[in-house]
Amino acid sequence: MPSYTAPTRDTRFIVNELLDLASYGNLPGFEQATPDVTDAVINEAGRFFSEVVAPLNQSGDREGCTRHPDGSVTTPKGFKEAFAQYREAGWGTVSQPVEFGGMGLPHVLGLVMEEYIMTANQGFGMYPGLTTGAVSAILSKGSAEQQALYLPRMISGEWLGTMNLTEPHCGTDLGMIRTKAEPQADGSYAITGTKIFISAGEHDLTDNIVHLVLAKTPGAPDSSKGISLFIVPKVLVDADGTLGERNGVTCGSIEEKMGIHGNSTCVLNYDGAKGWMIGEENKGLAAMFIMMNAARIGVGIQGLAQAEVAYQNAVAYALDRRQGRALTGPAEPQERADPIFVHPDVRRMLMDAKAFTEGMRALSLWGGLQIDLSHKAADEDARAKADRMISLLTPVIKGYGTDLGYQTATNMQQVFGGHGYIAEWGMEQFVRDARITMIYEGTNGVQAMDLCGRKLAMNGGQAVQEFFAMVDGECDAAKGDETLGPIAEKLAKANGELKAATMWFMQNAMANPNNLGAGAVHYMHIMGIVALGLMWLRMAKVAQAKLAEGSDDQAFYAAKLTTARYFADRFTPDAGALRRKIEVGSDSMMALGADDFATAA
Amino acid sequence: MPSYTAPTRDTRFIVNELLDLASYGNLPGFEQATPDVTDAVINEAGRFFSEVVAPLNQSGDREGCTRHPDGSVTTPKGFKEAFAQYREAGWGTVSQPVEFGGMGLPHVLGLVMEEYIMTANQGFGMYPGLTTGAVSAILSKGSAEQQALYLPRMISGEWLGTMNLTEPHCGTDLGMIRTKAEPQADGSYAITGTKIFISAGEHDLTDNIVHLVLAKTPGAPDSSKGISLFIVPKVLVDADGTLGERNGVTCGSIEEKMGIHGNSTCVLNYDGAKGWMIGEENKGLAAMFIMMNAARIGVGIQGLAQAEVAYQNAVAYALDRRQGRALTGPAEPQERADPIFVHPDVRRMLMDAKAFTEGMRALSLWGGLQIDLSHKAADEDARAKADRMISLLTPVIKGYGTDLGYQTATNMQQVFGGHGYIAEWGMEQFVRDARITMIYEGTNGVQAMDLCGRKLAMNGGQAVQEFFAMVDGECDAAKGDETLGPIAEKLAKANGELKAATMWFMQNAMANPNNLGAGAVHYMHIMGIVALGLMWLRMAKVAQAKLAEGSDDQAFYAAKLTTARYFADRFTPDAGALRRKIEVGSDSMMALGADDFATAA
Repeated sequence: MPSYTAPTRDTRFIVNELLDLASYGNLPGFEQATPDVTDAVINEAGRFFSEVVAPLNQSGDREGCTRHPDGSVTTPKGFKEAFAQYREAGWGTVSQPVEFGGMGLPHVLGLVMEEYIMTANQGFGMYPGLTTGAVSAILSKGSAEQQALYLPRMISGEWLGTMNLTEPHCGTDLGMIRTKAEPQADGSYAITGTKIFISAGEHDLTDNIVHLVLAKTPGAPDSSKGISLFIVPKVLVDADGTLGERNGVTCGSIEEKMGIHGNSTCVLNYDGAKGWMIGEENKGLAAMFIMMNAARIGVGIQGLAQAEVAYQNAVAYALDRRQGRALTGPAEPQERADPIFVHPDVRRMLMDAKAFTEGMRALSLWGGLQIDLSHKAADEDARAKADRMISLLTPVIKGYGTDLGYQTATNMQQVFGGHGYIAEWGMEQFVRDARITMIYEGTNGVQAMDLCGRKLAMNGGQAVQEFFAMVDGECDAAKGDETLGPIAEKLAKANGELKAATMWFMQNAMANPNNLGAGAVHYMHIMGIVALGLMWLRMAKVAQAKLAEGSDDQAFYAAKLTTARYFADRFTPDAGALRRKIEVGSDSMMALGADDFATAA
Repeated sequence: MPSYTAPTRDTRFIVNELLDLASYGNLPGFEQATPDVTDAVINEAGRFFSEVVAPLNQSGDREGCTRHPDGSVTTPKGFKEAFAQYREAGWGTVSQPVEFGGMGLPHVLGLVMEEYIMTANQGFGMYPGLTTGAVSAILSKGSAEQQALYLPRMISGEWLGTMNLTEPHCGTDLGMIRTKAEPQADGSYAITGTKIFISAGEHDLTDNIVHLVLAKTPGAPDSSKGISLFIVPKVLVDADGTLGERNGVTCGSIEEKMGIHGNSTCVLNYDGAKGWMIGEENKGLAAMFIMMNAARIGVGIQGLAQAEVAYQNAVAYALDRRQGRALTGPAEPQERADPIFVHPDVRRMLMDAKAFTEGMRALSLWGGLQIDLSHKAADEDARAKADRMISLLTPVIKGYGTDLGYQTATNMQQVFGGHGYIAEWGMEQFVRDARITMIYEGTNGVQAMDLCGRKLAMNGGQAVQEFFAMVDGECDAAKGDETLGPIAEKLAKANGELKAATMWFMQNAMANPNNLGAGAVHYMHIMGIVALGLMWLRMAKVAQAKLAEGSDDQAFYAAKLTTARYFADRFTPDAGALRRKIEVGSDSMMALGADDFATAA
């Protein structure tokens, strides 16, 4: 049976040393985030998710959720009790605003919670996970009344939330939704339609579920400019929050899917359900994007999460399983065979995983800091710059993070050989669970188009130019340093490929926009490599300083330096190949017609 | 529900036009393989596997196999009847020797059958699939008596076969097996031990199952030089083949696994079962490799197979599902949205799949031709050369073919967006089924070490030098040709990367063999790119000639040319990045110790 121990040492390194959260102590919410406090939160949360939530991961996958004839849904054994403990401990409140019952700590720490819960048990983590996005939308667009009624209960975990976007005939293209919202005399709306793929759509963890639903009011434009967002509670509530009658929304079925069986992915039928509009009519898409952006970073972290748990178990297996001999001669001659850890190809997979997970953890938490700074930095310029940076990198965190997360989980399964394919060992579940992250909250192809079609062009390319300058600046600063110099040189080369690809888009996308679409995913991957490379350069710099000052934990910092070198050696070369693929454009890609894809007859 | 139509047009193109089987009519077995005959076999087999076997793929996955308390196993509904039809039609006999009841057609056509059956239904295909390897071993190493007793029945499908290698504590390192073979007075052996992961280990398709089992005789060397191979029939048989008593082998359990649920993957307990040695004592490994090499090519074809069926369904979905608009403006303005086929990123995934599947089909069937020529070519030199070529490329066909097969199946699932994750659409099964192909019959890491550690060095590097010369020769010949020249140029560049990587190994592996291990998988991938690239250059050349002579089927050949260009554009750039990764060597990869991989505390 697989196990999970939260990587608290690495998290503390990132939070306290790499991001140096304490240095932002002058900003609101940061003042209480001293290393003592952050260490306590990280360690205690790590213990909770490893010991209480992780043990339900495999059993939750096997049992799945059960829909009863009345439409109610039971979650797997143990989920309800574990969720009660989660709520009791307040793990969902860490980075939520104090005025609505949150702890008001930096968003960085909220993302640490997201990583730990998703690594421990993705199916479980998605129950409160979707709530985070719903809370963001209500915080940003809800009326004072809506905020007062819903937020304290959603933040405390008394109620949970969902996001209702997809319908059978439309997912990405939300302008096509058919769910209707008819205005009622009392100011509410009657919501009617069918939503599919609703994660945590129905369950027994809380007494109420707050659905955020995209729908169209009568006469709304037939496009994404005609959709509005509604709050539709499963159980109607009084102004003081007392539960009343059941609302007209029911779970029609639970989807049978490849993984995340612990989460109930529901078809929800709205039959004149009472809903209340959030924000302005026909401005639902903007509100939806607030949920979505929060969710996208969360999904990127899920990619990291499945990679991390798979990695931990693969390391343990590689050290335990004996097969063959080291190429350099028996490593443990007294034993019948060496641990497979000695084989370079096993080590390659483990090092790839180490370089990805630690780099991705740094990138996602650094992304969390940008979100904090975008709200709380002292001056307007700093806030705007942080906002540009996280806007640019959100699709990269989601798209690159989950592509690599799935690849890493697959490789860690490979370390187990045949045993990796057997359910009992748990590795195949990590792969099945990781697979969804490349799809939901916008497929990775959609992320790539968001990056290349929207984010690159924002403010005349300001964000990406700032990103280039940041990377080049740090590479330049490392020049000549014996340790950091060679790492920076390879990063600067990858950044050069990214700049060249950007230039190529500028010169070739106007004439034929398919040239942009044809290279978008490759571009997203180059930017992922550069972004992780930057994190590795920074981590190497911190490690170098710690080693120089004679830290007690020499081994930890020395390993960081080695892994930074490994990342530079083994991840950056792909940037050049990806650029070459971009520069061939879309001609041979788009030349064939539908009939040319028929393989038979 | 997914569907499958055998790609008969493409197969006929490869067999008749690319390989030009008819031109070998002077060789034994080829004289009857006229285009009329091969077309009939291909078309009729295509119809059978598409119509009879494919419809049981999804139901077989859902139902799985059932082990009863007495150890007997029932296959999924419909498998028994479909297998009876398969046997009746003689599809397993196509390329088997006439003297044992086979049709004696070229091995090329046997591989076509393997592709079609595995694409239609991998769980089903593995029942007769494992028999092919067992037949090869008996053909090559069995006594005349053993051949006469077993081969006609195994080839006809009256009995099926298995391969019993793995034990709980050893897979790759077969020298460690513990299964014992005690010699008996009657010349047989008493086999005792536990074998795991035995595909098709017990079932209800045939009255008997012929297990080929690796075991150790008393006092045998404690290494791979001390293992012998035994025939152990499930039911004991008289010399005339009449079934007698049950032998002492039982199915202890069926493994719960990620996919191929239609196949019974068994734990087999041998309890003094009666077995007969095949070939010489302690020479079991050589016999095993005969099974294994046949099986490895078969597994490479399984990679192609899952990619192909996933591709066919993704094309259909991409043409049907409407979402968003073409970047170049509405393609079908009269409709509410365009088919997702118009989006470059969808097309990228489909073109990647087309370029891989058609290229891989050509490579595997060309590999089949090398097997034929290694036995049947007119002169000894030609036989030896063909043998070297298939020895070199077997690990590439297995390793590259299945890595790309899984990646392709995953991408085709991605085309479906959220629906790809839902069981009902069938795409997730293709991914789960494809996943095993990277693992069994030697993990892809083992394939890469076979390639780099053994095959490169064979006869002083003769095989790989011949491969380089073949590629360079054909690239040179295409130079200056307006159509073929640019394709050849990119292929020659990739071949240059492969040669450089080979040279780097020669210069750096002696001093530190980990340098070889650290780059082996990357090397295998470069060779896969070059091998598929060569197939595409050849296909382009044939297509160009057909277009020039005014073939009726202009569209088919024009698409071949476009896809050849696409392969050159989009697959070959990776060769350079892979070479750069090889050339960084193993230092940063092997530097960390076990403790450095702990992520917590």
